[in-house]
Amino acid sequence: MDIKEKFGLKVKKLREIKELSIEHLANISDVDRNYISDIEKGKRNVSIIIIEKIIHALDTDLATFFNDKSFKK
Amino acid sequence: MDIKEKFGLKVKKLREIKELSIEHLANISDVDRNYISDIEKGKRNVSIIIIEKIIHALDTDLATFFNDKSFKK
Repeated sequence: MDIKEKFGLKVKKLREIKELSIEHLANISDVDRNYISDIEKGKRNVSIIIIEKIIHALDTDLATFFNDKSFKK
Repeated sequence: MDIKEKFGLKVKKLREIKELSIEHLANISDVDRNYISDIEKGKRNVSIIIIEKIIHALDTDLATFFNDKSFKK
């Protein structure tokens, strides 16, 4: 699995744990809903600004988000 | 400090700890040296693929790289 797919899966997992729809996450992160949908499918090479927007909207931070075995070597 | 600047500072700090020149980091990460120079200055909205290339070239992983107080809320 490449890094785009790993990132997308973690976003989807956290979004579902928080019981947010893609539309709701789009609204609170100020990222387009179609773009979020593509991110979750691993199709987007997201930038660090978008990464931060989504992670903050999921009520976490980069340190916590990436502290996951899927982001370890 | 915005996320582009925080990321750049951490890259520069790790590169210097490892006593790598920008040129050497550019070679092992396969990222252009001028682009790395701009990243370290906080000027680039880097993508997750570039983030991964640089972090792996610095011999670490995303979990470890972002586990830093500057990336916490």
